[in-house]
Amino acid sequence: MNERTRIILASLALVLTSTRPLVAAAASPTIAVVDSNVTMDETLAAQQSWCAGLLAVSDANETRGLGAAKAQAEALVEAAYGYQFGVVLFKPTMTEAPNTFRTTRAGAVSYFVGGDPMYPSDAGFALKGWKRCEVENVAVFIRGDLATTMGNVRLVDKTGAVTVVDKSWQFLKDQTGHLRIVLHHSSLPYAAR
Amino acid sequence: MNERTRIILASLALVLTSTRPLVAAAASPTIAVVDSNVTMDETLAAQQSWCAGLLAVSDANETRGLGAAKAQAEALVEAAYGYQFGVVLFKPTMTEAPNTFRTTRAGAVSYFVGGDPMYPSDAGFALKGWKRCEVENVAVFIRGDLATTMGNVRLVDKTGAVTVVDKSWQFLKDQTGHLRIVLHHSSLPYAAR
Amino acid sequence: MNERTRIILASLALVLTSTRPLVAAAASPTIAVVDSNVTMDETLAAQQSWCAGLLAVSDANETRGLGAAKAQAEALVEAAYGYQFGVVLFKPTMTEAPNTFRTTRAGAVSYFVGGDPMYPSDAGFALKGWKRCEVENVAVFIRGDLATTMGNVRLVDKTGAVTVVDKSWQFLKDQTGHLRIVLHHSSLPYAAR
Amino acid sequence: MNERTRIILASLALVLTSTRPLVAAAASPTIAVVDSNVTMDETLAAQQSWCAGLLAVSDANETRGLGAAKAQAEALVEAAYGYQFGVVLFKPTMTEAPNTFRTTRAGAVSYFVGGDPMYPSDAGFALKGWKRCEVENVAVFIRGDLATTMGNVRLVDKTGAVTVVDKSWQFLKDQTGHLRIVLHHSSLPYAAR
Repeated sequence: MNERTRIILASLALVLTSTRPLVAAAASPTIAVVDSNVTMDETLAAQQSWCAGLLAVSDANETRGLGAAKAQAEALVEAAYGYQFGVVLFKPTMTEAPNTFRTTRAGAVSYFVGGDPMYPSDAGFALKGWKRCEVENVAVFIRGDLATTMGNVRLVDKTGAVTVVDKSWQFLKDQTGHLRIVLHHSSLPYAAR
Repeated sequence: MNERTRIILASLALVLTSTRPLVAAAASPTIAVVDSNVTMDETLAAQQSWCAGLLAVSDANETRGLGAAKAQAEALVEAAYGYQFGVVLFKPTMTEAPNTFRTTRAGAVSYFVGGDPMYPSDAGFALKGWKRCEVENVAVFIRGDLATTMGNVRLVDKTGAVTVVDKSWQFLKDQTGHLRIVLHHSSLPYAAR
Repeated sequence: MNERTRIILASLALVLTSTRPLVAAAASPTIAVVDSNVTMDETLAAQQSWCAGLLAVSDANETRGLGAAKAQAEALVEAAYGYQFGVVLFKPTMTEAPNTFRTTRAGAVSYFVGGDPMYPSDAGFALKGWKRCEVENVAVFIRGDLATTMGNVRLVDKTGAVTVVDKSWQFLKDQTGHLRIVLHHSSLPYAAR
Repeated sequence: MNERTRIILASLALVLTSTRPLVAAAASPTIAVVDSNVTMDETLAAQQSWCAGLLAVSDANETRGLGAAKAQAEALVEAAYGYQFGVVLFKPTMTEAPNTFRTTRAGAVSYFVGGDPMYPSDAGFALKGWKRCEVENVAVFIRGDLATTMGNVRLVDKTGAVTVVDKSWQFLKDQTGHLRIVLHHSSLPYAAR
């Protein structure tokens, strides 16, 4: 059976909160720790994994064609999102009513690569030849095994054109220690008209 | 000292998971329960409170003027958001770079009523004469004292014009039992150009 | 892939927190809800499952012998405890230093049925001919997917003799919706000497 | 208004999970982080605070008399426990039925210093002239703002006599960042009779 949660056998530098010398820290060489909390580093790494996954779909499309891109998109949705928890709260950047929200795997895959008759307006966001994906976080809220981030993502395509989106993600660290997106709200910047 | 967490003294209908008759439920008339989890009802109520708060700002502006509207906006930000936790992840519907994100109270108040020289492009979103505010949830994710919602909000102004926004909220139930917004991402629907 | 988290498609009786009639609840027939929180009913059911498991070991010993009892104890430890998370904080009722704490599966199984040379003082707590197991909760603390309980457990053996223990349990609801013991502290009542 | 949650303005060493050079980390000098999780260091410090509080009651009793000891015990219960959340799951080392469990402040204070007619068997555990208090953790379970510990506490009185207890604590980090005991189960070691 695989270990689902990180175990740390740590040599502990006990923190004394009192200057009272009689409150001594006993000699405790090792303590088993089960800690399921998510860290900032894990959160930033999960964002980078999403970026890497998006670029991988674009790359597959350019080098191996649409079939390969679709397989890559399915892998991205499977690895980066939490559809196995039930539904994902996913509002992609470029979706229109009545299919604005993609709470199922099929809706997410269609958004990235299109071609699904259930989502006729999907052009395939990941087929736009993306070459770079940069995350610029503004603020992060961490609580237990949930981390919520807000900021911009800058996408650069093969022509050098830049698309900036406003993006919120909420990640859940599952019991294997893997972070999965449970909320993803992305939108183009507002422009006064 | 006020009680910060709901206590339930519940007469318990014990749930037996075994059909084995020897596993009897002892006579336990009352058990003290401390339960800090957020419920669906509380989540929906918090959404309605936000709507009520927005309409109250609009109403104050029309009936008592901009000063009253500003006071009402400050009350909304204080009551409905979690700025006391540090920052709020707030991307309002109609904000522009470099002031897209409103992680502070001042930025939130300015968004609703404008007039702050630090945020010169703010026209005052709550001054648009809103008369109705309807929440149409698509999905809700509840975990501990956090509830995350995604869906549409329909706003109707005094002329009957309708504005629909795509909206994500994350609420934290604080230790007084009050729900506060810790993430708010709102955006106008995408329209292919 | 199996669904790991309960999904509720609920017809919602929206709770209005404002008497303001303009704050209307939109017609929302169904909302997908992912809720990972543990409930009081689940907690009480998990306690009963532990009791049923203990009695099953006693019963196996009496009707089918020690080998069957050991298999049943292994099943109890596997099903009711959270050793797959790393370690369990388990202080059984009748263990002595240096083996007071049973943070591993082997230590837990030995406590219930004995016979492990690593734990020479274990007489096999579940081999005492238990016929009844009653839980009398005093207080319960629920937070997220964790529920902590404190109270007495009354055990009655085949001669009618009663053993009462003071017991604390902490259960974690895992991502399959199953509650597992992550803390178990049991002790005989103190008696002034 | 005081800040209730730690805010970190951190220069972030972004963790790249991909070796793909095109996935670049954008220049993000500072990100606001709201992190409510409890750490191992905070947990160990809270244990030491409990020890310091117990010794302070003993010391007050010896140097300033029972009245001072009672005030000190009230301060300990107020500072170290979470009675303001409703009830605390507290089973002290030396309590007897029907007052085994001390779910209220009054019951906790009486346990430490006695003298309460509601708890006639209380001799005042903190009046035993304790001079040292050492925590020897065996395992710790951390999840969100909850940390649960199990191990031994060694108490040494003014004559040099040693009392070892088996002890479980569960701490909740409240919204001011202060850890409070929500479960405390203490028991004398089992001795075969």
